[in-house]
Amino acid sequence: MASETNHKFLSKPLTVGIVGAAFSGGQPRGGVEQGPARLVEFGLIDQLKGLGWNVDFDEKFPTYEDFKPQTENKHKILKNVGHVASVTKSVAESVQKVVEKGHLALTLGGDHSLAMGTVGGSAAVHKDVGVIWVDAHADINTPLTTDTGNLHGCPVSFLMGLEGTKEVTELDWLKPCLAANRIVYIGLRDVDAPEKKILKDNKIKAFSMHDVDKHGIGKIVEMALEYLGRDKPIHLSFDVDALDPSVAPATGTPVRGGLTFREGHYICEALYETGNLVAVDIMEVNPMLGEQSYVLQTIQIGCSLARTAMGESLL
Amino acid sequence: MASETNHKFLSKPLTVGIVGAAFSGGQPRGGVEQGPARLVEFGLIDQLKGLGWNVDFDEKFPTYEDFKPQTENKHKILKNVGHVASVTKSVAESVQKVVEKGHLALTLGGDHSLAMGTVGGSAAVHKDVGVIWVDAHADINTPLTTDTGNLHGCPVSFLMGLEGTKEVTELDWLKPCLAANRIVYIGLRDVDAPEKKILKDNKIKAFSMHDVDKHGIGKIVEMALEYLGRDKPIHLSFDVDALDPSVAPATGTPVRGGLTFREGHYICEALYETGNLVAVDIMEVNPMLGEQSYVLQTIQIGCSLARTAMGESLL
Amino acid sequence: MASETNHKFLSKPLTVGIVGAAFSGGQPRGGVEQGPARLVEFGLIDQLKGLGWNVDFDEKFPTYEDFKPQTENKHKILKNVGHVASVTKSVAESVQKVVEKGHLALTLGGDHSLAMGTVGGSAAVHKDVGVIWVDAHADINTPLTTDTGNLHGCPVSFLMGLEGTKEVTELDWLKPCLAANRIVYIGLRDVDAPEKKILKDNKIKAFSMHDVDKHGIGKIVEMALEYLGRDKPIHLSFDVDALDPSVAPATGTPVRGGLTFREGHYICEALYETGNLVAVDIMEVNPMLGEQSYVLQTIQIGCSLARTAMGESLL
Ligand SMILES: [Mn+2]
Ligand SMILES: [Mn+2]
Ligand SMILES: [Mn+2]
Ligand SMILES: [Mn+2]
Ligand SMILES: [Mn+2]
Ligand SMILES: [Mn+2]
Repeated sequence: MASETNHKFLSKPLTVGIVGAAFSGGQPRGGVEQGPARLVEFGLIDQLKGLGWNVDFDEKFPTYEDFKPQTENKHKILKNVGHVASVTKSVAESVQKVVEKGHLALTLGGDHSLAMGTVGGSAAVHKDVGVIWVDAHADINTPLTTDTGNLHGCPVSFLMGLEGTKEVTELDWLKPCLAANRIVYIGLRDVDAPEKKILKDNKIKAFSMHDVDKHGIGKIVEMALEYLGRDKPIHLSFDVDALDPSVAPATGTPVRGGLTFREGHYICEALYETGNLVAVDIMEVNPMLGEQSYVLQTIQIGCSLARTAMGESLL
Repeated sequence: MASETNHKFLSKPLTVGIVGAAFSGGQPRGGVEQGPARLVEFGLIDQLKGLGWNVDFDEKFPTYEDFKPQTENKHKILKNVGHVASVTKSVAESVQKVVEKGHLALTLGGDHSLAMGTVGGSAAVHKDVGVIWVDAHADINTPLTTDTGNLHGCPVSFLMGLEGTKEVTELDWLKPCLAANRIVYIGLRDVDAPEKKILKDNKIKAFSMHDVDKHGIGKIVEMALEYLGRDKPIHLSFDVDALDPSVAPATGTPVRGGLTFREGHYICEALYETGNLVAVDIMEVNPMLGEQSYVLQTIQIGCSLARTAMGESLL
Repeated sequence: MASETNHKFLSKPLTVGIVGAAFSGGQPRGGVEQGPARLVEFGLIDQLKGLGWNVDFDEKFPTYEDFKPQTENKHKILKNVGHVASVTKSVAESVQKVVEKGHLALTLGGDHSLAMGTVGGSAAVHKDVGVIWVDAHADINTPLTTDTGNLHGCPVSFLMGLEGTKEVTELDWLKPCLAANRIVYIGLRDVDAPEKKILKDNKIKAFSMHDVDKHGIGKIVEMALEYLGRDKPIHLSFDVDALDPSVAPATGTPVRGGLTFREGHYICEALYETGNLVAVDIMEVNPMLGEQSYVLQTIQIGCSLARTAMGESLL
């Protein structure tokens, strides 16, 4: 059973709505669209039921092929804009429906461009939602700064409506819904120069691995929660590449010097304990990358992070 | 030479009495009974002499075959009750004799059911002994709650005389000798639901890995010592499965997310520095599990934990 | 670009003078003399230019063969005294010239006996330089205490002019230039008994891995800087064996229980941020030890430590 906590924004009986987002169009490497199916295949649904949650899940993983436009319009070097836009719009609607019911929205990715949908959905219900973005990357490039054009590196700029995002008309459905002071990063260690400038100019709260080493993960989470407000709804968007590659190897853009197994789970357990979680994303598990043992290890971690964010505790 | 400290409960010249407890009857996997011989074979005795200790050790490892009863009585699903009872009684007598002389009792296991003997023995001499139980597991199932019947998961409940233990007449020799507030756990991360309830109901001080991550190992040990009292005798019962499986792989019930090499030794060094240690158990080294390199690594760790608890220091 | 900081002891434009010290005579294992070339071959120069530094480097790695005396005089069991003396004298001159110009001296080793030259050189310019010596070892044996005679275990005693050093006339060029209270160790875990006594008798500030675990690396660096003085020039002498062997395996005297990848880089980033660095040594990378993948990993770390000490930051 999940450990006891006072859920401030969820209805009883506790129910989780699962959004399986089998999408990889926000980046170039195939395979990440198979993340959700593999997490479920590994037993995630029963594990969550075992924690006492009602699980609302239709066992389907839309592959979003029919969301692909006939042709993609050019927006600088952005790739697959139309496809990403229609998929994230659909995900946003799904997440919003879950959160409106007072259920926890658990989105299984899929690449991190999907967070335009997940945060878009939760912020549509809770205007004051605070996002804790756990990632090696800031994912805050704009259409003007990205040098790859991969939208999984840009979701935060679209959620905030930064410069250059409004011109991307396909994503008009997404109104700016995230103020610069409603997000906290944890785990950053591979941030582009223009991203560093954006973070600085917008005074965005960001804890790099240097900060984690300086303060310890306990203090970092405490500061993050203090910053967002102790009584505010929280959306946890967890990119598994925040973890060290030795912990979660099967992901598209691994970077050395990441969170340990323990630190990753610490974050999830501590956020669960707040009773403030309204949405959780587990993103960027790519079961096509690397040896089978590494893939299995990464899937296991994906499941255990989700379970921990939903009340599985060490004690 | 061992680093200097003021030993409050040991006589001069410093002497360690070694109890080699070649026993595996508290759990189902063969091999752990060979732990003590392998630790000694690796050079532990000379290492301790090198630290300046007199070593009292008869070079024998009783295999306890003759302690096996003709037939085992049924007690719920408990396994090998008679055998465990007579072996732990013998170990308790050995440890008690060592501690009475003002020597440090170093018990080499063997499975952790042996702690009924080791703590039974030290508590017979020091009524106010405080136990620091370093383990992935709480080992506090009772005859009523265990779902495996393996007694290495139950020693603490017998030491405390919890519900259902008195009915196990073979263990009558062990009178409740450990109050709920004389034990502190460090390293927990795989605790059964009924065990969680027992810990909570009895207000037992337990630091899970979540707590270690929250506070750091330095603060955890400080809190443990503060809790037990700065001037009280300490019994360290160290199950090597407290360490991460990447650190100590050759053990019967490994669990991910454990103590690092450094944290494990930190605990031992910090407890040595108190000058309060009266007994140390190094348990659950199983040289029959896994590849030879993993076995060797685990034996080395077993030895270095013992040395560190006996004064080998980094500086 | 390097992150912004207020460089107190460097001239604009920022320039680094690289001293490639291809020398292995302070210890017995061949290969460490190839460290500098491999670090450069891996791209270090361009990486530093990419951070915005002017790089002053003549692309030569003196192998110091012509510095070898015809015969070596006997000084107890010290090995290669004449060779080490003339090489370190040359390195001292090189480092001094760099530091005098207000450039950062980056010395690529080579074995750690070279630090007689590097610290000798920086201390000749900045009398009050504080040394942060990151190492598994204290390298403070004297001619009277060393039991190997390898001078890479002795440089600190010569820098301080400890007992027995003055008799080594070849090293007369090196006047005692480092007071006992101008050095702080971080990472110690393999210190000889006589070295422990020297550290204690001279009240030298030394943080072992036990201390790192106790306080966390953030607090350790803070205490080190506090101790040396916030406005004093700093010389960072980084022996890669301070890192755990799993992080930096290709080095001559690896010791378990070392700094993590993150902690090693934390130190460099935090020291860069002070704006006080005048010299950095990256020592004991030995590309002849171990499998190619381990060698590459160690070279990468050597480069990233240097970059981090020169302003590459996570955020
Ligand atoms: Mn991401
Ligand atoms: Mn990422
Ligand atoms: Mn255990
Ligand atoms: Mn145990
Ligand atoms: Mn060194
Ligand atoms: Mn060293």
